[in-house]
Amino acid sequence: MMALEAHRLGIAVKILCASAAEPAAQVAPFVLGDPNQLSDLLPFLSSVRVATFESEFYDSAVIETASRKCGTQVFPQPGLMGLIQDRLTQKELLDRYDIPTSPWRPVSSPQDAVVAYIAMNGRAVFKKRRFGYDGYGTFVVKSENELSALSLQMAAPGMIAERFVRFTREIATVAVRDQKGTVFFYPFVETKQKDARCLWVNGPIKETKALKTLKARITTLLSKENYVGAIGIELFDSEEGLMVNELAPRVHNTAHYTQNAFHMSQFAAHILAVSGERLSEPSPLARGFAMWNLLGSQARELSEIHPPMMESGAFFHWYGKIESRPGRKLGHINAIGKSPSDALALAKKMATKAARQLKY
Amino acid sequence: MMALEAHRLGIAVKILCASAAEPAAQVAPFVLGDPNQLSDLLPFLSSVRVATFESEFYDSAVIETASRKCGTQVFPQPGLMGLIQDRLTQKELLDRYDIPTSPWRPVSSPQDAVVAYIAMNGRAVFKKRRFGYDGYGTFVVKSENELSALSLQMAAPGMIAERFVRFTREIATVAVRDQKGTVFFYPFVETKQKDARCLWVNGPIKETKALKTLKARITTLLSKENYVGAIGIELFDSEEGLMVNELAPRVHNTAHYTQNAFHMSQFAAHILAVSGERLSEPSPLARGFAMWNLLGSQARELSEIHPPMMESGAFFHWYGKIESRPGRKLGHINAIGKSPSDALALAKKMATKAARQLKY
Repeated sequence: MMALEAHRLGIAVKILCASAAEPAAQVAPFVLGDPNQLSDLLPFLSSVRVATFESEFYDSAVIETASRKCGTQVFPQPGLMGLIQDRLTQKELLDRYDIPTSPWRPVSSPQDAVVAYIAMNGRAVFKKRRFGYDGYGTFVVKSENELSALSLQMAAPGMIAERFVRFTREIATVAVRDQKGTVFFYPFVETKQKDARCLWVNGPIKETKALKTLKARITTLLSKENYVGAIGIELFDSEEGLMVNELAPRVHNTAHYTQNAFHMSQFAAHILAVSGERLSEPSPLARGFAMWNLLGSQARELSEIHPPMMESGAFFHWYGKIESRPGRKLGHINAIGKSPSDALALAKKMATKAARQLKY
Repeated sequence: MMALEAHRLGIAVKILCASAAEPAAQVAPFVLGDPNQLSDLLPFLSSVRVATFESEFYDSAVIETASRKCGTQVFPQPGLMGLIQDRLTQKELLDRYDIPTSPWRPVSSPQDAVVAYIAMNGRAVFKKRRFGYDGYGTFVVKSENELSALSLQMAAPGMIAERFVRFTREIATVAVRDQKGTVFFYPFVETKQKDARCLWVNGPIKETKALKTLKARITTLLSKENYVGAIGIELFDSEEGLMVNELAPRVHNTAHYTQNAFHMSQFAAHILAVSGERLSEPSPLARGFAMWNLLGSQARELSEIHPPMMESGAFFHWYGKIESRPGRKLGHINAIGKSPSDALALAKKMATKAARQLKY
């Protein structure tokens, strides 16, 4: 989706990926290789003016080395990728900028886990420090049995424990910072998870004083850390107040709706920011917007599809993945409308139609 | 632009083109070759399920032969491409369906030209039967000197002469027909030409009874001829009434605005129609829309550009051409707004900014 926007904007792109079947390789020139291998990454980086990534789960030290050796900048900077991809250093980063997040502590042994479990009154969430996503590597522990089972998951570099937060709703936003220091936020949206995956997002939601304060602190973080590009921010809205649940140093699923609700999508904004272009805050094109993920329901191969017919205000986006798996993100529907609820109803209707027709 | 929409819709595409520098080759897998050569076209057609074209100026007989040999359908059908690419058979087609067009006659010799010039009261437009576009191959003749100069242009298969029409404005639309027979029209828009090239379009314009009648007749033409895909229709609005000036059997510059003013652009609709998907009539997402072409002002090489910052409601589209020439279409700005005039003002403002910044 970044490549598609780059095409329209006249910015030439090249992809480094593991397989020609990957979605990005289907829509832009590509080179096969492993971004974790210096021998693959260095020649690739040497051949481009600037680079970015669509997943933060790469070896940030390798990227940093390659970038230094050839002089091609990578945005967001590999050091920040490293800080954010590790849940422990991500929590430290949030704490450093006074950004509210659930109470946490490091866990590097079964003993630490017991202490954390007790300290959190027997209701804790344990998360692997690295490479967890969409529920993988996350363990809700509410009993001693669950706590014992957890030891099996304990491996270097360990985990963090968070106090379990009973939230009323989850919300999210994406902020983008350009190389000159301009920062803007897309609107906050409500997000609905199902089986640890985002099912839909809907917005805009009302921007409270607490959300404004949060934006100011995140802006400070991005500015002081000299962050460049898009950053996804997931939040719990709870009786205890707002708490940041997770940062992601990249474009984010919860802002896919911006493809059709803004004149500048998160993908365009990210590509412009990492390319060194200046940004200005965009305003929405509709009073309500929604995104509904098209999630796989079964393991099966996918061939070319028949795109379902959309009603006015709804937009079908398909990723060209060659395999479906239960819960896998295969595409999404964006919708705009006169109100958030109108947009969500349209997105749901079109997603239901897509699921029935495409049987993924 | 068709490929970009196909990517989003999950429809795999492959391009046959003359050079890797062509815009389409930059955004999709491509094969180098000449669509006018059976030896290039046949293996290409054999490798795809269905094919279409972005220019009608190919040898329709070669396409028909290749299509028949390998069984891959080409839409719009090569026979219709042939009829429409020739101004004489295009006029006959319009006459056959009672679609108003300026009075005309065939011209295949200097003598014919003199007769036509006299018959049209000394104010005629001569057009080469084939391969004219954007003013190339069109000659306005209002004096005997101009008429003499015309003989130099006379070559097989000749020309047609049309009576010169003094129009009050030019308007255009694009219709799309799917393989099941559904036909819809995007709104009529006013188009402004400058030096024989489209400078901007703006709409929607009010749909009069005459336009409704015209739509009905074009629908009959498309249905009886079993046309599949998008067709561009350019009109003169004159004191004598509406007259079709030109048909183009493809997506059309005057409907580029649909990329941002509709949930289904002309590119998406065309790709869906030729792929065998069903269409339904889309409705506009805004009350006003405009498109402003970014036309080259000088001969120069173009390298990678800095995309200009757009205001909300404006969208920058760049084609990645590697050379600018005076009048060459290099990109466009789409704008939406609360009224046609709002949209046009925004498009103009952003196009002026783009021209100043990009110096193309």
